[in-house]
Amino acid sequence: MMIELSRIEEAARVLAPVRRKTELIHVAWPGDSPDFYIKPENLQVTGSFKLRGAYYAMFKMEPEARERGILAVSAGNHAQGVALAAQQMGVPAVIVMPRSAPLSKIKSTGAYGAEVILQGDSYDEAYAYARELEQSRELTFLHPFNDPDVIAGQGTVGLEILEAMPDVQAVVVPVGGGGLAAGVASAIKQINPACRVYGVQAENSASMFASLQKGRRISLDSSVTIADGIAVRSPGELTFDLCRRCLDGVFTVSDEEISGAILTMLENLKLVAEGAGAASVAALLFGRLSLPGQKTVAIVSGGNIDVNLLARIIDLGLKRTGRKMAFYTEISDKPGMLGKLLGCIARTGANLVSVHHDRVVHHVRIGHCVVEIILETSGETHMEHIQKTLREEGYAIQMIG
Amino acid sequence: MMIELSRIEEAARVLAPVRRKTELIHVAWPGDSPDFYIKPENLQVTGSFKLRGAYYAMFKMEPEARERGILAVSAGNHAQGVALAAQQMGVPAVIVMPRSAPLSKIKSTGAYGAEVILQGDSYDEAYAYARELEQSRELTFLHPFNDPDVIAGQGTVGLEILEAMPDVQAVVVPVGGGGLAAGVASAIKQINPACRVYGVQAENSASMFASLQKGRRISLDSSVTIADGIAVRSPGELTFDLCRRCLDGVFTVSDEEISGAILTMLENLKLVAEGAGAASVAALLFGRLSLPGQKTVAIVSGGNIDVNLLARIIDLGLKRTGRKMAFYTEISDKPGMLGKLLGCIARTGANLVSVHHDRVVHHVRIGHCVVEIILETSGETHMEHIQKTLREEGYAIQMIG
Repeated sequence: MMIELSRIEEAARVLAPVRRKTELIHVAWPGDSPDFYIKPENLQVTGSFKLRGAYYAMFKMEPEARERGILAVSAGNHAQGVALAAQQMGVPAVIVMPRSAPLSKIKSTGAYGAEVILQGDSYDEAYAYARELEQSRELTFLHPFNDPDVIAGQGTVGLEILEAMPDVQAVVVPVGGGGLAAGVASAIKQINPACRVYGVQAENSASMFASLQKGRRISLDSSVTIADGIAVRSPGELTFDLCRRCLDGVFTVSDEEISGAILTMLENLKLVAEGAGAASVAALLFGRLSLPGQKTVAIVSGGNIDVNLLARIIDLGLKRTGRKMAFYTEISDKPGMLGKLLGCIARTGANLVSVHHDRVVHHVRIGHCVVEIILETSGETHMEHIQKTLREEGYAIQMIG
Repeated sequence: MMIELSRIEEAARVLAPVRRKTELIHVAWPGDSPDFYIKPENLQVTGSFKLRGAYYAMFKMEPEARERGILAVSAGNHAQGVALAAQQMGVPAVIVMPRSAPLSKIKSTGAYGAEVILQGDSYDEAYAYARELEQSRELTFLHPFNDPDVIAGQGTVGLEILEAMPDVQAVVVPVGGGGLAAGVASAIKQINPACRVYGVQAENSASMFASLQKGRRISLDSSVTIADGIAVRSPGELTFDLCRRCLDGVFTVSDEEISGAILTMLENLKLVAEGAGAASVAALLFGRLSLPGQKTVAIVSGGNIDVNLLARIIDLGLKRTGRKMAFYTEISDKPGMLGKLLGCIARTGANLVSVHHDRVVHHVRIGHCVVEIILETSGETHMEHIQKTLREEGYAIQMIG
């Protein structure tokens, strides 16, 4: 089937009072070849685009079905989208979330007034339980992506991109189940077929990528990625069919590239993206997709990242880019030796983050002790300079992490 | 003197091709009484509003003065604003930064093509050196705030707020030297005198607050705050005079409140704010300023926060709001005892972040060992439940941090 433009346009009218019209942000990174913009759906109400599809699909339901109450299964963004849409429409919502869902997302979903049920250790177990509930409590199940109205709702992101930039040449969309990609591609290809639409998946969860390669829907055995919002083990029938016909290609990015994109957006754009949201930016940033000189929009689909995870990503990112340096070294166990080491470090211009001095550690020679040092540094060159300086002063260095 | 509206309007025309027109974002926080919007100047090019004043002031200089090269002293946002403005105008810029400036800001400033000179251990020492350079290298010094053209440039933020929301009732502005506040208040009071304009300062660096109270410019002995962008020890003559005449009040916020606002913006709005930028939001969030039902815009002046600091703020914020719990407990040193403790914790529904098990620690009874546990929890109630459960099982708990 097709998602007709008229349906997406209707969704845009229905959504006008509830969705935030996120404005394109121009990105000027050094060495960046496309003329690059992002569509920041992380700034959308509920922190992701998911409200769009959920709200429009609920609007299109028979009133009787809607009023029985909406049922959804989700570990994250769909949960919040459905919960807020139901709250706005004044109907009950029951959201089944796996027990492994981040506490922050469980709390947010509850804050929108939904009944949250924690059940099962995986999405599949939560899903199985929800289908029982659907019968026993006579609720109306709303699929997160494989539903034409949900897809039409997500397609409004594409309409807004074209409205803001009619001459856009390429749009890059994160792909999980494929609802956003199918909707955006449907909208764009019907209005401006010359514009390319590319999907991006996390390489550890590339079910759409694999399905398109095989020409049929594939189900992955596992899908563990930092981009939990697009960790979907199998595309939907409808979304697979639409993506096959409308997408110009699907690319994959690694979790490390996604982390790098999250950190880059945080530092350079002052925007918080979740793993799924950053996948599109990662594809361009790390050259998985090269679009020199083209007017390109990357959709940042959401920003609902657990802040604990964000803190870890910052830490790893700083270490990888040479801006944080952690190492062990040995000093002799005499007065003044730690001060001497720290003086040597100070002369390299590095800021001290932490010092951990320990005498009782395995493998340390008698009369020596181990010092764990963490420094703030300005990049690879600075880090190499510090290593060289310390080695010249006779310190043996063992890097950490 | 007055900053005439015509001058601010000219600044707006001059800035149109270089500044990003940041769009107001509606904020819907539970329990939030004003009808609350933010003006996200953290999304401005260079990560703060400072480009506006710097660019307009350089535009208004005699070409001969401009072409000699611009000199600025700054540990942060002014440095980046001047560097980019100079790059855009094709003139040289020399930026003196204190050696204590964050490495990330030093790098960004250099990336805009400016000559960066690290000199002095404080802003004052860097300033003294810069004034020598001004003579020896015949450069044109650009003050970060006490300059009518700089103030007019910053005033364009006020024009944009009025353009987007002509019926705004209150605007809240972070205040350091007072350039942004003076400019915004000048613009707003000339167009819509009924709109209130309030300033917010960090309580550890409240020089404008103290100066307004005394009726004369005060110089603080120290100004150490997480909001380094508004850590200014004395307001300018001109900015003091304008703030005295145009502001409806100045309020202060604590570093803890600023940290809370940074974390709230990160989690709920997906925006990275620096301490100075979050001060305005903190004043509303923590009730320093109560504006029930009023249409209020808080200016988030910038987002240039060191990511190391951001990671620390996340960590502290999680602990304070009961979403991260760190404690020591003792277990007997027999096989299976750690597993038993962890099983007990698992049943409370908390996620384990880290476990550190140590036998060789001071003050531990022989036959026992200390375990340091860090958990992800869902809030105060959850944390209390965990404490109670563990105590009932016979574990003595000592909370950390």
